[in-house]
Amino acid sequence: MKTLNIGLFGFGNVGRGLYDVLQRIDSDNVHIKRICVRDIAKERGVKAEFTADPNDIFEDKDINLIVEVIDDADAAYDIVKRALKNRIPVVSGNKKMLGYHIVELIDLQEQYNTPLLYDASACGSIPVIRNLEEYYDNDLLCSVKGILNGSSNFILSKIFNEHMSYKDALKLAQDLGFAESNPTLDIDGWDSLFKLIIITVHAFGIYVAPDQIFTYGISTMNDSDIRFAREKDRRIKLVAHVEKFDDRLIMCVIPQLISRNKYIYSVEDEFNGVVIKGLFYDKQFMFGRGAGGHPTGSAVLSDITACAYNYRYEYKKRNDSVLPIYTTDHTFRVYFRYKTAEQRNLLHFSKVREQYSSEEYNYVVGDVTIANLKAHQEELRTADCFVAAYPFD
Amino acid sequence: MKTLNIGLFGFGNVGRGLYDVLQRIDSDNVHIKRICVRDIAKERGVKAEFTADPNDIFEDKDINLIVEVIDDADAAYDIVKRALKNRIPVVSGNKKMLGYHIVELIDLQEQYNTPLLYDASACGSIPVIRNLEEYYDNDLLCSVKGILNGSSNFILSKIFNEHMSYKDALKLAQDLGFAESNPTLDIDGWDSLFKLIIITVHAFGIYVAPDQIFTYGISTMNDSDIRFAREKDRRIKLVAHVEKFDDRLIMCVIPQLISRNKYIYSVEDEFNGVVIKGLFYDKQFMFGRGAGGHPTGSAVLSDITACAYNYRYEYKKRNDSVLPIYTTDHTFRVYFRYKTAEQRNLLHFSKVREQYSSEEYNYVVGDVTIANLKAHQEELRTADCFVAAYPFD
Repeated sequence: MKTLNIGLFGFGNVGRGLYDVLQRIDSDNVHIKRICVRDIAKERGVKAEFTADPNDIFEDKDINLIVEVIDDADAAYDIVKRALKNRIPVVSGNKKMLGYHIVELIDLQEQYNTPLLYDASACGSIPVIRNLEEYYDNDLLCSVKGILNGSSNFILSKIFNEHMSYKDALKLAQDLGFAESNPTLDIDGWDSLFKLIIITVHAFGIYVAPDQIFTYGISTMNDSDIRFAREKDRRIKLVAHVEKFDDRLIMCVIPQLISRNKYIYSVEDEFNGVVIKGLFYDKQFMFGRGAGGHPTGSAVLSDITACAYNYRYEYKKRNDSVLPIYTTDHTFRVYFRYKTAEQRNLLHFSKVREQYSSEEYNYVVGDVTIANLKAHQEELRTADCFVAAYPFD
Repeated sequence: MKTLNIGLFGFGNVGRGLYDVLQRIDSDNVHIKRICVRDIAKERGVKAEFTADPNDIFEDKDINLIVEVIDDADAAYDIVKRALKNRIPVVSGNKKMLGYHIVELIDLQEQYNTPLLYDASACGSIPVIRNLEEYYDNDLLCSVKGILNGSSNFILSKIFNEHMSYKDALKLAQDLGFAESNPTLDIDGWDSLFKLIIITVHAFGIYVAPDQIFTYGISTMNDSDIRFAREKDRRIKLVAHVEKFDDRLIMCVIPQLISRNKYIYSVEDEFNGVVIKGLFYDKQFMFGRGAGGHPTGSAVLSDITACAYNYRYEYKKRNDSVLPIYTTDHTFRVYFRYKTAEQRNLLHFSKVREQYSSEEYNYVVGDVTIANLKAHQEELRTADCFVAAYPFD
């Protein structure tokens, strides 16, 4: 194990978490040499050398690992690119940056023979990427499905179990440090989407850009929807989902009505839970804290230690002779609560299984393609309506 | 990825499972070259070259990987040693063999610079060893606790949920291929013990021999015990447990009265569930099929693929400057159902919290050290009595 002198970018929730974790393990081999922050004047009560100038890190010859845990995806992208081009191994937790730029960053890793690790970017403390990379690296893998965003799950738990209002639940999530500074990232499914894209690269070897994938969150969910779920003895969970059917791959982020017999039914609060399904081994379930400075900090530590042992992702699946083809031509059953006939007609239900009308609202349960949902993503997100997958089980 | 020509020892449940899995993935890089079995005359309906002579495998220069999935631990030990000494990488699923010989086999791996992988030996399809080795390789780890034996858990599920008799449940487990050919390995906790020993080597860097660890199963459990558990709204599960307290390490295999709020409460049938607890990341839960030919066969496949990428365990924790010291000097609360005052006095309860007497049986809830339990392991196992850990929670 080599000695690591870390240049750290960012000292928010996760940076602070990492600092605490490193203090506790008191390793002789891992040191934070310097920390780059926006506001150098801020009192942090921490014994460390702070700087506001990235050059102080990039030009420090002692620094042999860069750890980037800042919020700003564009700045993170610049840092990671610069690190790779300078052949300094880099650990990142920025899923948005990876969601947009992972392909280029894979190429840069190869070109400069320098690793980028980012297990901490997906599911906090659950080692999902490492397991997909190392253990589920054969073609038995069928699907990866899970609750990948701790903040929205926390809100849903509070609403469902404690009858809290959406607004209060969001405020509490923010106070506890689970929510991103921009909560729409969590609530509207974007954070889950970026993680899903990263997971799919490792699980199935293909990259699909964010704007190609139906992504829908919980911000328009209301009491009627919650009542519907309760009547069916289900809970609403925000689920990211990738699944292979022969040579076709579907992906989406959508609220789902989850029945009691599903593993993710019991994933509550800020926890994340991922179900990995394959031929022969059936389902594997991994569960753990998906948000918060300390759990994510300890995930960053695992990436750091892996760097010390010269570990790198091999992206084995990308070398498969036949890669699956991404498609939105896949039908599933949804619950759709709407106001106007125009809204309902938008989705072109191929089959209507249940319908309900009243003066206040209407809903329909029926079959729709992902393509139709995708085509109207913006309307669905902004109108007085709500759609959720409603699987048969 | 290099091409692997496998010499396979054993074509029972797991060997057959591996064969099916390999047929399915149809990889150009992995072939079973020859299979060594006891009874070569047996019709198996399989296109493969069978032999009864191990030399046919060891002397075949094409074979560059040995996979050993036989039942007999002594024979497995000879095969693995011979493979390592011949510098042929080897994959094993034999937990009993590893439970007794892992230290020597670690040394042989180093001496002959040849890897031995055995993720399939613990928890079937759950990659627990790989995760401990690669992800939980820092000193934040506090404990690993879980249901490691699918067969006994299957039996407990059937008894608890379906009011099946012990005998019928065991028979069903055997018919379904979950139970070892010698069921006492499962029922009396030995199988869990061997897995716990392997896990502890990777989790905490020390080896503790099987005869040093309190190991107790469910074969004396009766209806009174089940009733007691139900009254307390708990389930009895057979739990293997290793936990570090500062510089001390405790280990045991013991039935536990598990309350509803615990992850492993919901692990039913032949499934395994492992809770990994650490500072900062709190608890991680991994869950999956822990028995059966196909799940275990797919775990063996993951080891095989890892060999193709020259992966080997690094046993990082064994190099820690300070290793924890194993102790049985640790007190916990137990439920103890017994017949005679002599039995009760055996355990030297330091504190009695509840007691019950009747003409049929008596029980006591009280505090006892692992050392006292260990000192009377044989009496506890053979007499008309039953002991189970009864944690406060």
